[in-house]
Amino acid sequence: MTSSRQPEILFSADSLNFRPSAIRAFSHLLNDPRVISLAGGAPSPETFPAERLAEIAAEVIRGNRGVSLQYGPTLGLARLRASIAAIAAERGIRCAPEAVLVTTGSQQALHLLATALLDPGDVVLVELPTYVGALSTFYGRRAALAGVRQDEEGIIPDDLAAVIARERSEGRRVKFLYTIPNFQNPSGRLLAAPRRAAVLEIARREGIVVIEDDPYGELVFDAGAETTPIAATDGALDRLVYLGSFSKVLAPGLRCGFIIASPGVLEKAQLAKEAADLCSGMLDQSIVDAFCAAGELPAQIARVRDFYRAKSRVLLGALEEHFSGRAQWTKARGGLFTFLTVAEGVDARALVPAAIEAGVAYVPGEAFFVDGSGRNTMRLTFAKETDERMREGVRRLAQVVP
Amino acid sequence: MTSSRQPEILFSADSLNFRPSAIRAFSHLLNDPRVISLAGGAPSPETFPAERLAEIAAEVIRGNRGVSLQYGPTLGLARLRASIAAIAAERGIRCAPEAVLVTTGSQQALHLLATALLDPGDVVLVELPTYVGALSTFYGRRAALAGVRQDEEGIIPDDLAAVIARERSEGRRVKFLYTIPNFQNPSGRLLAAPRRAAVLEIARREGIVVIEDDPYGELVFDAGAETTPIAATDGALDRLVYLGSFSKVLAPGLRCGFIIASPGVLEKAQLAKEAADLCSGMLDQSIVDAFCAAGELPAQIARVRDFYRAKSRVLLGALEEHFSGRAQWTKARGGLFTFLTVAEGVDARALVPAAIEAGVAYVPGEAFFVDGSGRNTMRLTFAKETDERMREGVRRLAQVVP
Repeated sequence: MTSSRQPEILFSADSLNFRPSAIRAFSHLLNDPRVISLAGGAPSPETFPAERLAEIAAEVIRGNRGVSLQYGPTLGLARLRASIAAIAAERGIRCAPEAVLVTTGSQQALHLLATALLDPGDVVLVELPTYVGALSTFYGRRAALAGVRQDEEGIIPDDLAAVIARERSEGRRVKFLYTIPNFQNPSGRLLAAPRRAAVLEIARREGIVVIEDDPYGELVFDAGAETTPIAATDGALDRLVYLGSFSKVLAPGLRCGFIIASPGVLEKAQLAKEAADLCSGMLDQSIVDAFCAAGELPAQIARVRDFYRAKSRVLLGALEEHFSGRAQWTKARGGLFTFLTVAEGVDARALVPAAIEAGVAYVPGEAFFVDGSGRNTMRLTFAKETDERMREGVRRLAQVVP
Repeated sequence: MTSSRQPEILFSADSLNFRPSAIRAFSHLLNDPRVISLAGGAPSPETFPAERLAEIAAEVIRGNRGVSLQYGPTLGLARLRASIAAIAAERGIRCAPEAVLVTTGSQQALHLLATALLDPGDVVLVELPTYVGALSTFYGRRAALAGVRQDEEGIIPDDLAAVIARERSEGRRVKFLYTIPNFQNPSGRLLAAPRRAAVLEIARREGIVVIEDDPYGELVFDAGAETTPIAATDGALDRLVYLGSFSKVLAPGLRCGFIIASPGVLEKAQLAKEAADLCSGMLDQSIVDAFCAAGELPAQIARVRDFYRAKSRVLLGALEEHFSGRAQWTKARGGLFTFLTVAEGVDARALVPAAIEAGVAYVPGEAFFVDGSGRNTMRLTFAKETDERMREGVRRLAQVVP
């Protein structure tokens, strides 16, 4: 008695606004050895302390399977939360372990906060350009995205205030600013210290929340770079949420990020997480916890810094050699990226096939700009290729770019 | 120039509907050794093959850190997806690896589907009683939950049809049925085979989606129990989504579940996952993948079955001894739970303090019923305690229950 009444499956309004990540769409280009990839966003496996992690993994499984292989608390493993509070303290952020929620990578932190904070149509302020994974999450909540301009010192406070005023004058509700002050993805920029204070002041004055995402702050190449998070300001956590991650300093496959927030925000994030995945992977957490508890993180971070510092110099040197006078790029003082701005009128997306043909890949910058600008920009990473291939890649790129 | 304008943080409408899990609120009772816990929901660590998992973890980290410690594809590790398709085939479900999405536990599968399918006010049909973790997720999307009655053979098809008609007559849109046909959490019931066909027929006729959650199907104690998923019916995947998990047969700390769905649903779930956590833990996936590829899963499942079969007999025997004639309970033929219905008028929630005082814990059943019924029910697990403590626990419980 099968009937003819079989309507199509009706998806949610949120899902009609889902947008795939422009970066992840490029990942198939990253595995062709003939193409030198300056396009990746992932850290280098050379920085993963595999031997120690293998030992620790076996230890925490053999020694405590009732924890490492079992369900765990939604907020995260208690000792790991304490280690994270101690890591935050070293960055100047004063918080108790109770203010920490362990997440399934930083991406989940963004997702939990977007769920807790955003109704359809709410405005999220983002940097021009910004991280596309955050955009995916905000689009999935049907947020209205408003771009705030940056210059070489990062987000421009006057523009932030102006965009808030403009959005409100058009009747929209501004919920939060999403910012990556340290070695931003994709721009590689460092938000200048006075601007950090100005951003917080504007947020306080205007009553908006700040989500400060800091996955790259430890990857600082230059002792003079001021990377102290906005979250370190007295009282900042009243309306600022700080996000961190072990993905860049340890290994992203372990999916271990964290949120530091006020009790009210943390409670909502915890409830959202309970519905999202009950708890983050307990083996992953047990490994990161044991690594931290053994005191091995500082030396690991120092090794990772040295690695990327050396790599960044090669890429920046090659840009100097091949693009001097015909393009601008970020003299990255940390992180994984530099951002190249070529001549006005050049369409970096349209140039991709020619670049691939020439044997070099990059991420066209346009997808990082919510206002449709940035067509003449490219994100380049120094995390993936050998020194020699990076130099050759930039040489090839210079031949392709008009 | 700090101003006085500091409004409270405004949370989303979804978040105002967040509800904590009634089970997880009980977890603090589970670690007091004086209290015998029949209240847990987690599998026994004794079933986790810790030694093999420790070896495999070290191997996949040492052997392939560029995969096991790196970001991975949103859909999951390719070979694991093929193994899952083969596992599904053994259960009678014909699907290609391309129909599989690996999730961060089954809970995430529910969350992704709720995100993709539900708008506020949409009706989700759930069994009376049902899994509270699913309820948390549906509440978080502001769904309207409508309960469908069960008897000893599981969900009652006539009631399913009646509830759909009632909800529609009141102007609501019915999106999907959420069902756990095999050894349901919390009831322990097995949906009778003829009813499986009837449920699918109703879903087809009425044009609703079915989400079939099957975490317990492999934990079958009785060769005569018919556990073939509804998803095994020809063409079922057109409007049915099948969920599975390695949490009960391997280890939940690895957070490895999966969705099998039609291309349209899978695409939406993939986009939701990209926004939710980019990818599931790659070490976890690498371990599960290697365990499956080594052909060790069938022997592991056989051990787990034997373990819980023996445990279930102890608990069911003790109930027979102490509750015969004064209560009903599920003669569980698989899974982790039995469900006790005591005399009408007894309030199982109100009885918890007395039970704790007497040294035994259970989960009061009311939280599993979306219609406020089930006050005189309790969920009991045979997964946690030793045989001797289970017998003593049931003896104590019998003294507390009037």
